[in-house]
Amino acid sequence: MAKRITLSVDAMGGDDAPDMVIEGVHLSCVRHPDVHFLLFGDQARLEPILAKYPRLADCSEIIHTTDVVTGDDKPSQALRQRKDSSMFRAVGAVKDGQADGVVSAGNTGALMAMALLALRALPGISRPAIVTTLPNTVGETVMLDLGANAECSARHLVEFAVMGEVYARTLHGIQRPTVGLLNIGTEELKGTGTLRDAAAILREAKLEMDFHGFVEGDDIAKGTVDVVVTDGFTGNVALKAIEGTAKLVYSFISNGFRASLLAKLGYLIARGSIKRVVMRTDPRRYNGALFVGLNGIAVKSHGGTDALGFANAIGVAVDMVDRRLNEQIGAELANVDLSSLRSSEAESGA
Amino acid sequence: MAKRITLSVDAMGGDDAPDMVIEGVHLSCVRHPDVHFLLFGDQARLEPILAKYPRLADCSEIIHTTDVVTGDDKPSQALRQRKDSSMFRAVGAVKDGQADGVVSAGNTGALMAMALLALRALPGISRPAIVTTLPNTVGETVMLDLGANAECSARHLVEFAVMGEVYARTLHGIQRPTVGLLNIGTEELKGTGTLRDAAAILREAKLEMDFHGFVEGDDIAKGTVDVVVTDGFTGNVALKAIEGTAKLVYSFISNGFRASLLAKLGYLIARGSIKRVVMRTDPRRYNGALFVGLNGIAVKSHGGTDALGFANAIGVAVDMVDRRLNEQIGAELANVDLSSLRSSEAESGA
Repeated sequence: MAKRITLSVDAMGGDDAPDMVIEGVHLSCVRHPDVHFLLFGDQARLEPILAKYPRLADCSEIIHTTDVVTGDDKPSQALRQRKDSSMFRAVGAVKDGQADGVVSAGNTGALMAMALLALRALPGISRPAIVTTLPNTVGETVMLDLGANAECSARHLVEFAVMGEVYARTLHGIQRPTVGLLNIGTEELKGTGTLRDAAAILREAKLEMDFHGFVEGDDIAKGTVDVVVTDGFTGNVALKAIEGTAKLVYSFISNGFRASLLAKLGYLIARGSIKRVVMRTDPRRYNGALFVGLNGIAVKSHGGTDALGFANAIGVAVDMVDRRLNEQIGAELANVDLSSLRSSEAESGA
Repeated sequence: MAKRITLSVDAMGGDDAPDMVIEGVHLSCVRHPDVHFLLFGDQARLEPILAKYPRLADCSEIIHTTDVVTGDDKPSQALRQRKDSSMFRAVGAVKDGQADGVVSAGNTGALMAMALLALRALPGISRPAIVTTLPNTVGETVMLDLGANAECSARHLVEFAVMGEVYARTLHGIQRPTVGLLNIGTEELKGTGTLRDAAAILREAKLEMDFHGFVEGDDIAKGTVDVVVTDGFTGNVALKAIEGTAKLVYSFISNGFRASLLAKLGYLIARGSIKRVVMRTDPRRYNGALFVGLNGIAVKSHGGTDALGFANAIGVAVDMVDRRLNEQIGAELANVDLSSLRSSEAESGA
């Protein structure tokens, strides 16, 4: 079959790489028969693993690299010293037009730095952002930025809102997403001047979203809006606080089930339903922190994920290519008027 | 019995006030026989409730007020227009030396504004903060600021760290608390300049704490440190994200138990243990967001709490008075050297 899409894969990135990565690509070959995979990594290590999955011969090729970015590498170090790493070369394949997108479960900071250097930002975007999807009471919440930009101006927040809206529209199929700015109260006068400036612009813009105004931390889990927009500092802290709390509550419940013989018996009887609940919040389903706003597609899978999680990250990359996310962001940006910003800020990141 | 401590109580604040408040004071009379309560509120409404609790005659008196701060009042409005409200008068009793501390379940913003105006900040503290205690895997985490100060300088963060340390030491009995600054990475170079400046001062200061450096969002639930310090914007978002996530996970689990007959049966069998788990994270146990850094004691109980939660908030106020929290904060502040800050900032909030 002629392959419609080519993805480059950092085969050496992730706690259980390369085995986990190759198994994930194998799952993806079944799910996405029209995708060709460029597997960047150590040929001598990859070949015996590939031999276990004969189907991979049809949909992938190995491109040998001699180095690996480690979890301890600082982004700046990795950029300078790891030019023949599987990650650097996999990102480079997108830059050179050999691949439509890249997927890696390696060092997040290094991947972001390499993707920024190689792909640059989309025209009109001053700061690419990290976005993910979280479960809520009624469905899913798209949240960004999750740590690419610790300090953000109103302009950056407006760009994040546009990118989040396009993401929810094209990847989640929500026709006119509701979008909220994360704040410490919902009244118009709450929070920082930056937030109020961003809200004023979004209220006036003619975008394919319902701008909901401000939302608070508990609105993320409630699902008050489809898209929650925040600076990378707050978003990163909130995301990790959410992950930590979910783990804590599950550990309390799990301790509860072990606390007595009766509890153990009750668990045995109810476990089918309980397991379905836990699966609904399975981090593998929400795997793939995406970089949006790059002039190319780059998906970061959790470092500790398994083959199923990695295949889901690949699935997100395929969707982003298929649904032309970047072109749609460009089109939607044209509907935003930034002229109300102080001229210094409007220019600052452009 | 001669009463050792006097607390003023806003009897009209809270969703189920005044009944809930009076019942909470009644519980407290039993727990703290050496405390006298000044109950500020509408005499005609309070008297019939007090009649239900004969014990209250010994430990409390009603002080009639004609107005009530509502949940919708803006803090500035409440300050100007509600001078004979139960809240304003209860705070005033601390200012006038009639009471050692005040407890209210009313409008948080209004209480903070009134307490700041009436009590002012402790000498040496430029910004009072809101602090609370959260459950973690190994015990409890003290976290501040939770929203009193949306934008914070390094100096403010250092003050919060000192107040949090003294809080954990005097109220939780931890001899030498570990303290961490909330950031988006644990490396020394991560985050904003403000955070790095604050970390540098705390590393050098001779305080009764082990300064742990930076912590991340998931460290709150893990219990990596005893005290998590952050600006009021991030802290407020993180606290609400945590509360929202805990509710979400419990609702998922509860749906799981209702999903089938087998699951319902399992729940019936295991419910004793499950309920004990849920109680461990019962918000009533963690009731009482405290204002620290005021020249007086002010405790805010959750507006939606019940009598037990209100009694716990009173218990915290009693502890703060008993253990001389404010004097200890003053003493510990003397061990901090702020001279490394740019002089403009060192002066900014003083």
